Amino acid sequence: MGKNFNYNYAFLFYDVGEKRVNKVFKVCKKYLSHFQKSVFRGEITPANIILLKKDLKKVINENEDFVCIIKLMNDNVYGEEVLGNKQNNTGEDLII
Amino acid sequence: MGKNFNYNYAFLFYDVGEKRVNKVFKVCKKYLSHFQKSVFRGEITPANIILLKKDLKKVINENEDFVCIIKLMNDNVYGEEVLGNKQNNTGEDLII
Repeated sequence: MGKNFNYNYAFLFYDVGEKRVNKVFKVCKKYLSHFQKSVFRGEITPANIILLKKDLKKVINENEDFVCIIKLMNDNVYGEEVLGNKQNNTGEDLII
Repeated sequence: MGKNFNYNYAFLFYDVGEKRVNKVFKVCKKYLSHFQKSVFRGEITPANIILLKKDLKKVINENEDFVCIIKLMNDNVYGEEVLGNKQNNTGEDLII
């Protein structure tokens, strides 16, 4: 699937053990913007995607955790529909 | 952002109150494939995106819940990177 595109934008979502949520959150925050609960997104260079993955591998437990990065060419290739109250759900306040 | 594209593929992620998770899950499952925890994805026609939103609006609490649909033209416009154990995390067994 589209392996030859030059991706410069990404969505990331994770499902990781509670003990590691904080660390994973911090790594993601370094490269992307927090979007919602366990979802990040933002502009990111292919080189930084590699660094992001490297940093994530240091903090996740590969047997128990799951992280998925959806890479897009830019933020013009998708459309977004939001239902409900976005403001209530940045989740930033839940992470210390 | 790309409002004029013909979108035929979508990612959906939700953050909804525990009481409504089951209902939201069932609605999403009707239109998309369960991908991971609170994330669905799959081919979907523009007409069905409208129906999906209509069905979701019936079951969510718009003040407390949040659902985001990311629409893409097709599954060729994104690349995917997965870290960790995907098999452990379909989450289907968690929903009765």
